Amino acid sequence: MINAAELAAQRREMFVHAAQLAHLPKSLDAAIVAMIEVCGMVDLVVDIRAHAGLVAAIDSALLAGRPVLCDCEMVREGIDPALVGESPVISKLNDPAVPDLARTIGNTRSAAAVDLWGEALDGAIVVVGNAPTALFRLYELLEAGAPRPAAIIGIPVGFVGAAESKALLAEGIADVPYLTVLGRRGGSAMASAAFNAIAGGIVR
Amino acid sequence: MINAAELAAQRREMFVHAAQLAHLPKSLDAAIVAMIEVCGMVDLVVDIRAHAGLVAAIDSALLAGRPVLCDCEMVREGIDPALVGESPVISKLNDPAVPDLARTIGNTRSAAAVDLWGEALDGAIVVVGNAPTALFRLYELLEAGAPRPAAIIGIPVGFVGAAESKALLAEGIADVPYLTVLGRRGGSAMASAAFNAIAGGIVR
Repeated sequence: MINAAELAAQRREMFVHAAQLAHLPKSLDAAIVAMIEVCGMVDLVVDIRAHAGLVAAIDSALLAGRPVLCDCEMVREGIDPALVGESPVISKLNDPAVPDLARTIGNTRSAAAVDLWGEALDGAIVVVGNAPTALFRLYELLEAGAPRPAAIIGIPVGFVGAAESKALLAEGIADVPYLTVLGRRGGSAMASAAFNAIAGGIVR
Repeated sequence: MINAAELAAQRREMFVHAAQLAHLPKSLDAAIVAMIEVCGMVDLVVDIRAHAGLVAAIDSALLAGRPVLCDCEMVREGIDPALVGESPVISKLNDPAVPDLARTIGNTRSAAAVDLWGEALDGAIVVVGNAPTALFRLYELLEAGAPRPAAIIGIPVGFVGAAESKALLAEGIADVPYLTVLGRRGGSAMASAAFNAIAGGIVR
């Protein structure tokens, strides 16, 4: 007779096959389902790329109360505060220093907001759902020796820079566990839904 | 010699053909581009449906300072406060009365939040980006004689009820100017981007 564990393993194997999940870590099943639900497109899965250490990295960062750094208010608003424990959820996009800083560095407001993360980056969880320029700026800062975050969920959307910023993330440019979606698709709702599914699924 | 106006008309005609915009009112060009940008998918256009009176209805409602009623915090957060004049931008989803009300009416929190719009519905602009149940509840309330909004941007996303709620909107169930996207695609970012493009493009 087949036992429950064998049945579960068989079911998972069939699901992995049907949903084309073979390129993704098993620990991200719930996040992938959430990302698909939030955009309504099952074929999204073929563009998802993730590092196998992502869930563990997010778990450790939340345990340590490290901040969740968002590129915009919609991502911040989408993150369920009940799931982050002591970690503050921060977006600097509306910080009064941003407009002047953006002019000074000759970049977007989203990029300037990343500069304001400062030391909070150290061991943080970065969640980018809107601005490719936020990711590009983060790569520059890391290259220049900025503190390294624990994990990056980087899913900006759109036609200008989004695909390029995410391809770099999937190639490991930041050298930390990541989750991304190749191509133009993404967005704030998808990024925060992925975070919530991961944080909500952590069992300690 | 061809003049500038003729050139502009020719250019628009080519754009309409290339982008398959023929089924959509010209006044919504900017909104359609914004919706496509925010999801990264040019084929979205074939699913967009809109009422020709939408921009005028939103213009009048904003001039009158009528509220912008959102189904969730992410939509509210996505709406640019610089574009709404005196109109308050409201989401009732986190209202403390919502959980009890949801139990009482045997419906979702999103539906209960719609009940709390009350008299504010009269002449309001409704923007739904997340919950099909918010749209279904709105249809019920309108059927039961609730005050009629000026316009509905109804673009909930996902696999359960979204397509059905939007098909009804496109069929004119609410009997007010609307904007929607048939099928599963949509979301808070798309709904607020469409609103911002329309409100930002109004010239008085």
